[in-house]
Amino acid sequence: MATSRSRKNAFYAQSGGVTAVINASACGVIETARAHRDVIANVYAGRNGIIGALTEELIDTGKESAAAIRALRTTPAGAFGSCRYKLKSLDKNRREYERLIEVFRAHDIAWFFYNGGGDSADTCFKVSQLSQSMGYPLQAIHVPKTVDNDLPITDCCPGFGSVAKYVAVSALEASFDVRSMAKTSTKVFVLEVMGRHAGWIAAAGGLIEDHGIPVVVLLPEVEFDEKKFIARVDELVKQHGFCTVVVSEGCHHPDGTFLAEQGTRDAFGHAQLGGAAPVVANMVKQALGHKFHWAVADYLQRAARHIASKTDVKQAYELGAAAVKLALKGHNAVMPTIDRVSDAPYRYKIGVARLADVANVEKFMPPNFITKDGFGITEACKRYLRPLIQGEDYPRYKDGMPVYATLKNVAVPKKLPAFELR
Amino acid sequence: MATSRSRKNAFYAQSGGVTAVINASACGVIETARAHRDVIANVYAGRNGIIGALTEELIDTGKESAAAIRALRTTPAGAFGSCRYKLKSLDKNRREYERLIEVFRAHDIAWFFYNGGGDSADTCFKVSQLSQSMGYPLQAIHVPKTVDNDLPITDCCPGFGSVAKYVAVSALEASFDVRSMAKTSTKVFVLEVMGRHAGWIAAAGGLIEDHGIPVVVLLPEVEFDEKKFIARVDELVKQHGFCTVVVSEGCHHPDGTFLAEQGTRDAFGHAQLGGAAPVVANMVKQALGHKFHWAVADYLQRAARHIASKTDVKQAYELGAAAVKLALKGHNAVMPTIDRVSDAPYRYKIGVARLADVANVEKFMPPNFITKDGFGITEACKRYLRPLIQGEDYPRYKDGMPVYATLKNVAVPKKLPAFELR
Repeated sequence: MATSRSRKNAFYAQSGGVTAVINASACGVIETARAHRDVIANVYAGRNGIIGALTEELIDTGKESAAAIRALRTTPAGAFGSCRYKLKSLDKNRREYERLIEVFRAHDIAWFFYNGGGDSADTCFKVSQLSQSMGYPLQAIHVPKTVDNDLPITDCCPGFGSVAKYVAVSALEASFDVRSMAKTSTKVFVLEVMGRHAGWIAAAGGLIEDHGIPVVVLLPEVEFDEKKFIARVDELVKQHGFCTVVVSEGCHHPDGTFLAEQGTRDAFGHAQLGGAAPVVANMVKQALGHKFHWAVADYLQRAARHIASKTDVKQAYELGAAAVKLALKGHNAVMPTIDRVSDAPYRYKIGVARLADVANVEKFMPPNFITKDGFGITEACKRYLRPLIQGEDYPRYKDGMPVYATLKNVAVPKKLPAFELR
Repeated sequence: MATSRSRKNAFYAQSGGVTAVINASACGVIETARAHRDVIANVYAGRNGIIGALTEELIDTGKESAAAIRALRTTPAGAFGSCRYKLKSLDKNRREYERLIEVFRAHDIAWFFYNGGGDSADTCFKVSQLSQSMGYPLQAIHVPKTVDNDLPITDCCPGFGSVAKYVAVSALEASFDVRSMAKTSTKVFVLEVMGRHAGWIAAAGGLIEDHGIPVVVLLPEVEFDEKKFIARVDELVKQHGFCTVVVSEGCHHPDGTFLAEQGTRDAFGHAQLGGAAPVVANMVKQALGHKFHWAVADYLQRAARHIASKTDVKQAYELGAAAVKLALKGHNAVMPTIDRVSDAPYRYKIGVARLADVANVEKFMPPNFITKDGFGITEACKRYLRPLIQGEDYPRYKDGMPVYATLKNVAVPKKLPAFELR
């Protein structure tokens, strides 16, 4: 393959909510592309994701030093900017697809690397089909990324291991705090974490049970039952003097309404959530009278590069690198995956999935990962989770603060007329 | 001194809200006491703070191994339990003071080490006076501790440097996240931090300005002016495309009501339950229409031993050790302090303050630490803050989780009849 075509450029974009390790995937893509300069001339990154491709706002990653690209491995969030922007189907918005091809053609782009979650996998799949439907040679490879851990086929999704570690460590620390205070003060601590549909992040909070902490986990997979919940908290506080509740933002009542909805919706039409923790905490207060504290981790959890999982950082990098290798082997419409071989010691191989099997499929917590009462995680779930939070991968610090990279992000000169986003 | 009296026991208790490093002070007290076994027979810790002294629930720290005591240095929260319990004045509750003396006498306690903040300094001061008023020989030494950093005389308070580091690092990481998303999604991120009266913790969020982040800091020292605040956010978002707001829980309106007390309602008409962050975020949404995210760090911030400041851990230990040395030198009614010698490099000496000068005095941010517009911190403030977050002091990890100590907390056999708390 490498010798059968002239050098072309690659396009890389970050999509959707960013993570502590999405830049590690970018690092994997760019470093691997640089190692194949005989085939891949340069990597152009989309400024603010796919929008950068539509508006021809491309970033010349070739202008970044090897040290700057290496620093991406320890820098959280999206170094090139991300976006929440979902392409409609080809029928409904042919204009945008034609523009993509126009931009790709103008900049001699043969490979499309899209780094995102479920919605982005769908977009990537649509782009992969352009080659056929529009007669432009293009290979589209999806690089998995989502703290929600809800992509199918792959063992886990880069970003998840780090947020899981953040949640487990933070919940443990806060639980030690509550345990200290419970005699005369706070008896119940509620931590709200992300996870609209799948409860993987909240499940990670369940790991603190192994450290002697009484914990209730509220998952979106389990319809919320206030009476049973209060009874469980009451039982744990009577037994231990305190308890911790880890509630997923997607936790909902049997009628489907979330415990807390802010009313606003994002570009994908998803309800913007937040505020389940105070709702749950007040429920406990009303029913049992316990003093409570609550925290909403929000962006802190998915940006927490300072406590990233070494396993997660490694996998994020490897999947970025694997995407480039798949492209060089001629693949299209695929996503590299983590295929677990064993739990302990954790062993995995890098596999590959067809995007047709990935797009629009959400992976939820399986029933055998949830305790019968619905308020905890099983040993099988813990066996699944434990390897993913293994190892620390600290950033470098200077003057007490982590050294995170901000790239130059030099623009590639535009060649086309402007394009208006609608 | 060491040879002039027979061996006696020391009492140590943790008081008020715990911190990431209060156990490092406990470690300093116990290890230093153990190094003076010729004078100090044993350290008895109060189970759940001063309540343990009243109820004669004493913990025999002599039953803990050297390794267990050493592990306190890297364990957050209060290993012996803390409490929120303020002794009334001697006139109003002579019964409790008499009980304290009774317990101290029964257990041959000659030294009272009280590890806490402002209220606790006041309690410690009252106890220090018992020696005279009740004719029982007792030396009371206060070990400073408070994330609020509001004790006078000392340069800073153990617990603060670590929460400051947590807030600065977390705000930086979340700001990188918002910066990534701002093009199509979140433009304003609001982080709520502790500090009911003094804005030291929120001020630490201001340090991210040096990392290129547009940030607004809302302090309790500055009366909140909604119009000016919105104008400032508008200006920053127009200039940078995004901005971060760090709001102190104690931020309040000119009439004294807290922002968090405002009975705002979400889009569904549900009352919003507490939290200054959602109130501020909704203000921005209403006035400027920006999409927002908000986080409430709550206990996560003060328990975050995983990102503790090395300087803070060191000082917490040193002040615990210094308290014992002051006791051995015959001091009573004092508190060891950090006396800053220089900012950069940071140099300090351990000094001593009279509790009469510490009790009931709150140290607020001085005017020259706050920018003229009231929304930021000055270079003088940054010079003050920077040394306090210097250095990382990571706990040991096992299987991806920090190894935090849980002590045996063996009870000292009771010798007295029960005492009822009222």
